[in-house]
Amino acid sequence: MNSPYVSDVPAAQAHAAWREARAAAGCPARVGAIRLPVGDAVGRVTAEPVWAQRSSPAFDSSGMDGIAVRAADTVGASETTPVVVTDFEVVDTGDPVPPAYDAVVMREHVHHTPDGAELHAAVPPYQHVRSIGEDISAAELLLPEGHRLRPVDVAACAAAGVTELAVRRAPVVVIIPTGDEIRPIGAQLQPGDILDTNSLMLAAQAREVGCEARVTDIVPDDPAAITAELRAAAAEADLVLLIAGSSAGRDDYTARVVAEAGSVAVHGVAVRPGHPVVLGTVTGEPGTPVIGVPGYPVSAALTFDIFAAPTLAELEGAATRERPSTTARLARKLPSVVGMDDWVRVRLGRVQDRIVATPLPRGAGVLTSLVRADGLLVVPAGIEGHHAGSEVRVDLLRGLGEINRTIVAIGSHDLVLDLAASALRAADPLVTLASSNVGSLGGLVALRDGLCHLAGSHLLDPATGEYTLPYVDKLLGTDAAVIRLVHRDQGLIVAPGNPLGLTGIADLTRPGVRYVNRQRGAGTRALLDHELTRRTIDPSTISGYAREEHTHLAVAAAVSADRADTGLGILAAARAFGLDFVPVAQEPYDLVLRADDVSHELLAPLWDLLETADFRTGIEELGGYSCTETGKRIR
Amino acid sequence: MNSPYVSDVPAAQAHAAWREARAAAGCPARVGAIRLPVGDAVGRVTAEPVWAQRSSPAFDSSGMDGIAVRAADTVGASETTPVVVTDFEVVDTGDPVPPAYDAVVMREHVHHTPDGAELHAAVPPYQHVRSIGEDISAAELLLPEGHRLRPVDVAACAAAGVTELAVRRAPVVVIIPTGDEIRPIGAQLQPGDILDTNSLMLAAQAREVGCEARVTDIVPDDPAAITAELRAAAAEADLVLLIAGSSAGRDDYTARVVAEAGSVAVHGVAVRPGHPVVLGTVTGEPGTPVIGVPGYPVSAALTFDIFAAPTLAELEGAATRERPSTTARLARKLPSVVGMDDWVRVRLGRVQDRIVATPLPRGAGVLTSLVRADGLLVVPAGIEGHHAGSEVRVDLLRGLGEINRTIVAIGSHDLVLDLAASALRAADPLVTLASSNVGSLGGLVALRDGLCHLAGSHLLDPATGEYTLPYVDKLLGTDAAVIRLVHRDQGLIVAPGNPLGLTGIADLTRPGVRYVNRQRGAGTRALLDHELTRRTIDPSTISGYAREEHTHLAVAAAVSADRADTGLGILAAARAFGLDFVPVAQEPYDLVLRADDVSHELLAPLWDLLETADFRTGIEELGGYSCTETGKRIR
Repeated sequence: MNSPYVSDVPAAQAHAAWREARAAAGCPARVGAIRLPVGDAVGRVTAEPVWAQRSSPAFDSSGMDGIAVRAADTVGASETTPVVVTDFEVVDTGDPVPPAYDAVVMREHVHHTPDGAELHAAVPPYQHVRSIGEDISAAELLLPEGHRLRPVDVAACAAAGVTELAVRRAPVVVIIPTGDEIRPIGAQLQPGDILDTNSLMLAAQAREVGCEARVTDIVPDDPAAITAELRAAAAEADLVLLIAGSSAGRDDYTARVVAEAGSVAVHGVAVRPGHPVVLGTVTGEPGTPVIGVPGYPVSAALTFDIFAAPTLAELEGAATRERPSTTARLARKLPSVVGMDDWVRVRLGRVQDRIVATPLPRGAGVLTSLVRADGLLVVPAGIEGHHAGSEVRVDLLRGLGEINRTIVAIGSHDLVLDLAASALRAADPLVTLASSNVGSLGGLVALRDGLCHLAGSHLLDPATGEYTLPYVDKLLGTDAAVIRLVHRDQGLIVAPGNPLGLTGIADLTRPGVRYVNRQRGAGTRALLDHELTRRTIDPSTISGYAREEHTHLAVAAAVSADRADTGLGILAAARAFGLDFVPVAQEPYDLVLRADDVSHELLAPLWDLLETADFRTGIEELGGYSCTETGKRIR
Repeated sequence: MNSPYVSDVPAAQAHAAWREARAAAGCPARVGAIRLPVGDAVGRVTAEPVWAQRSSPAFDSSGMDGIAVRAADTVGASETTPVVVTDFEVVDTGDPVPPAYDAVVMREHVHHTPDGAELHAAVPPYQHVRSIGEDISAAELLLPEGHRLRPVDVAACAAAGVTELAVRRAPVVVIIPTGDEIRPIGAQLQPGDILDTNSLMLAAQAREVGCEARVTDIVPDDPAAITAELRAAAAEADLVLLIAGSSAGRDDYTARVVAEAGSVAVHGVAVRPGHPVVLGTVTGEPGTPVIGVPGYPVSAALTFDIFAAPTLAELEGAATRERPSTTARLARKLPSVVGMDDWVRVRLGRVQDRIVATPLPRGAGVLTSLVRADGLLVVPAGIEGHHAGSEVRVDLLRGLGEINRTIVAIGSHDLVLDLAASALRAADPLVTLASSNVGSLGGLVALRDGLCHLAGSHLLDPATGEYTLPYVDKLLGTDAAVIRLVHRDQGLIVAPGNPLGLTGIADLTRPGVRYVNRQRGAGTRALLDHELTRRTIDPSTISGYAREEHTHLAVAAAVSADRADTGLGILAAARAFGLDFVPVAQEPYDLVLRADDVSHELLAPLWDLLETADFRTGIEELGGYSCTETGKRIR
C-alpha cells in the first residue's frame, strides 16, 4: 500500500520553518521602499519613521470666531461692571492671533458699541488661543516605521509639512493555475472540466490586502512546463502561488516542481481544510517564496489567510490585518480530528439574546460554506472537538451589528425562503434572512434548543396524516406559534419527457430505476417513507434509497446529470432544471417559531413581506405553489 | 449680542431629517446598476439577487485520489478476507466518477496486485463521492441583492456559472475646499495660511469605502463662486462635500450657499467635535445630497464617518461597514457636555490583564489625536460623562491583537521614547510603544492606578534634591522598579544667537522677557519651581509663567515662532528647531514600572533595544544626552 508522503506540520512550526528557509534562500525580509506623494500613500506601510517638518498649527491661532484682546485689558469685567475694550482685532476661527494680543473672546460674548467692544467677563491669558504646535510640533515623531497609512495619517503628515513619504511598495503576487482539467472562467465545459475559480479568488484576496496580483495562463500537468513558469514568475514576484497539484496524487507535481526550482521547506500542514500545502522557495537573486496551494477552493482561500497574508504583511513590515472576534454558543456537537487545526465555517445569529454559532458543511470543496459564513471557528489540534452548547471563540467575517439583525431560519429547505431573503435585503440592506437546511425535524429541534428564530417544516405525522403540528406539540408544547408559508406540490422529478414513464411511488421498485433520496429528518423523506409504508413497499427494494441529498435542488441536479432517474421533490426544483414532474401530493409548508417571537421587531419585515402582492406573485411564478393561506397563523 | 444660529439636532434625528429632505428633493435612493465581469466586481454591491446558473461540482466527482468502484463489488472485504476488484478506474481528486461506479476507495487503502485491486474493507455507496451540486445546485440563491462582494463570493459565482454580475456602480463623491486662507498641499505658506489637508483626507476616506472621489480647486470665500462650484459638482456627483464655512463666522457661507443652490435640512448637529455640520440637497434632475463639512480636521473626519459613510452605503444598498468594539476601563474621569454626543479618541492597552482606555486631547483641531487613537468612545448626549475606572464601550480603530502587544507608557515626554517606538516597530511590526505625555507626576500616578506599563519620570524632589525615587517611594512603595533611560541637559531654549543674552534662571524676571512654561506635574516645571524657590524668585514676576505647554517641542515651537523669548527644556528640542540653548542642569530620566513587569515578555524587546550600540548612538546624536547608565536598574 502507498503511504501518504505528506506530513502534518503544525501551522506555527510550518511558518517558522518556512521563514528560516526563506532567509537561507536569500529571500528579502522586506520589499523595497519607494517615495510617494502623501495623497498616493494611503494603504501603504511607512518604510521609515515620519517626523513632523513643521508645527501644526504653525502659529498661535484663534480657536473661535470673535475678537483678539489683551487679557490684561479685561481685568475686572463682570455682568454688573462691563469693560469696554478699544484695542482689539476681529478674528475668525483659524486666523493667527496678532502678536499684540494674547486671548480671544467669542463673538457671542462681545457687544459692539460706538466706544468699543463691551465685555461682561474678564478672560484669562491664552483663552481660545490654539498654541503653535497644539496638534503637533516640528521634530515630533508622527508615525513609526511599519505603520499602514490611513486617511487621517496622510492628512496629519501633510499638516506637519511632510509632502512625500517613504513607503514599502505593494508586494507583487503571481498566481500560476495548473492542471489538464482546468479551464478559464467563461469557457465551455466538457465533462470533467473544472473552472479556474481559484486564480480569480486568490488574485482578489491578494489585492484586498494591498498587493498587486497577476495570473499566468493555465499550465498543463507537465512538470517541466510548470517548473519553467514557476522560475519565470519568481523572477518578477515577491510571492508565487502555485495552485493545485499539492496533494499526493498522480498528477500532483507541486512538491517536485518546487524542489526542482528551489527547495521545499514544508509539505503538509496540520490544518483542515488545506493540509496538503507546500511552503518553499525558488532559487534566484534574490530568492522568492512560493506556496503550493491546494485545489479545493475552501483550502485555497484558507491557505491564503493562514500563510500568504501574514507573509505579505511581513514583507511590508506591518502587522497582519486582524479579524475581530466574539464568543458564541455552539449550536451542535462539533467533532474534530486531534492533531489538526480545524477551521470550521459558522453562521451566527442572536437568538434569545445569545450569539449562536451553527457549523456549516465542512467539506473543502464547499465554497458556499465560506460565502455563507459569518465567522470562522478554529478547533485547535490538541482537542477532540466541542460539545453542543459550548462557548467558543469565533473570528468574525461579518459585523456583529449585522449579525444581531439577522433572522436565523433552520429547517427544511424551500425556494420561497431564498426568495424572501433576497426581497428583504433589497428593501432594507440591514435585514438578513439566513437559512440553514437541516430538514424539518432538525429545524424543530433547533428551535426547541434556542438556536434559531424560525424553523421551516413540512413534516408529515404518519399516525394522524397531519403535517407539522403533532411534532410541534411533542417538541415545543404550547409555547410555539405556526405561520403558514405556502402549499406546494411534491412529486417525482424525472428527466424531460419522463422517458421511463414513471407514474408514482409504486414505480420506484421497478428494475433499473435509479432513485435519489433525501436525508433522514427531511419532510420529503418522511413523505416518501409514509407512502412506502402505506403501500408496504420495502425500502431496500428501491435502488439508490441510500443515496441522500440535502436539498430539492440537489435531487433535481442529480436527475439532470443522469446520476439518477428520479427523486421526490418540489415542482419548482424540477422546473429550475427544465425537468419533468409527476405529482404525488400537495403539502403545507409552515414556519414554526416561539409564540413570544411573533411580535419580535426582527421578524416584522418578514410578516410585512408575506402580505405583499408582488411577493406572492413571485412565489406562484416559481410553479407548484399556492399562496391562499400565506401569512396565516394556524397556531 | 449675536446668538448662534446653529442648532443642535441629535445625530439620529439629523439623519432622518436629511433622508426625508433627499427624497423630497428627488435624490436617487440608490446609484445605478452596471454589469461587470465577476473578476472586476469585488468590493461592489449586488444590484439583484444572484442565482446559480449551474451546479458545482457539475458532475459527481471523486473526493480523493484513488479508484472508482461499485460499492456492491466490495461487500465482504475485511482485513482477514480481502476482496480483489477487477472492474475499477483510477481517479484523482476532482475527476468525474465514471457512470458505471458509485464509490471511491482512497489510494492509501488499495493494494494493486496482478489480479486487480485488493481491498481490505467494504465501502458504502457514495463513499468519497462529491455529489453534483454538493457546493451549490443550479437555481439556488447564491447571494441576495445588497451584498458587498468579497473574493470568495466572486469565485463562488464563477463556479456557479455566473460570469457577469449586476452591481451598483461606485458612488461619486466631489469635494469642494473653500476659504481665502486655504492653500494646496506643497504650497509655500504665509502667516495665517492653512493647508488643504481636509480634501486629501476626505477623498481618501471616500475611496476607502469604495467610492470614486474628485477634489475641485480651492474656491475663495465668495458665495457666488461657491454656489456655482456646488451646482457644477452636484451635476456629476452622488454626494458633494463642501468643506469649511459651516460655522457661524464672518466668512461662513455654506448654509447660505446650500440654501441658494437647493435647501438646508439640518444646520448643526449635537455631535462634538463636528457640530456645525450642514446637511442639505442641491436642486437638479436628480437632486444631489450635500454635506457642509466643518473645517477642523477631527470634525471633518468624524463628519465623514457619521454622515457621509452611512449615506454612501445606503446609496449602494448595502450595510455600512462596522467597526468592531470592545469594553475597556477608563483611565481617568471624562466629563462631557449634556446634549451632545461626544466622540472621544482613546489609546488602548492591556495592563494588568484589563484593557485600559486613556482619553487623548479632545480639541477638534488635534488631528494627531485621531492618528494616535486606538479607539473611539462615544459619550452619548444624555449623560454628563464617566467616572475614572468606568467600564466603557470603545469602537476599535486598531486590532485587539495589536493592542494586546502594545507597551503603554504614560508620563514625561522625551524624544528618546519616540526614537525607541520607531526602532522597536522597525525590528518587529508587532511591537508598539505608545506614549502619552502627561508629565512625570501624572505618569507615576497612572502607574500606581494600573493604567500603564511604564512611567517616564525626571521629577526633582525639592526636599532631598533627588530625582524620581522619593516620589516612587511615596506613590508606589517597594513594589516598583526603576530603570535609568538617559541623563539629559535641561536649559533655556532661546532664539538663535541668544539675542536677549540670557544667562540663566535669574534673567527670567528681566522686563520684556516673555517666558513659556510647562504644565504643573511636568518634571521640567518642578525643576523651574525648584530653581525659583532656591533663588526666592516670585513666579508672578515672570511674564508668561501662566502660559503652559505640554512638551519640550511645543516650548521650542513657541520660541521659534517668536511667541516667547525662552522656556526651560531639553537641548534636543532646541536643536530640532535650530534654536540656541543656555544649560541650567543635567538630570536623570528614568522609566518606572512594577517590579513584576521587569520580566514581562512584552517589555523584553525594549530592554534588548536599550543595550544596542546603534540605539545609544542614535540617542547621543540627538544632542544633550548621555547613555552612560542607559538600561541600568537603579531600583
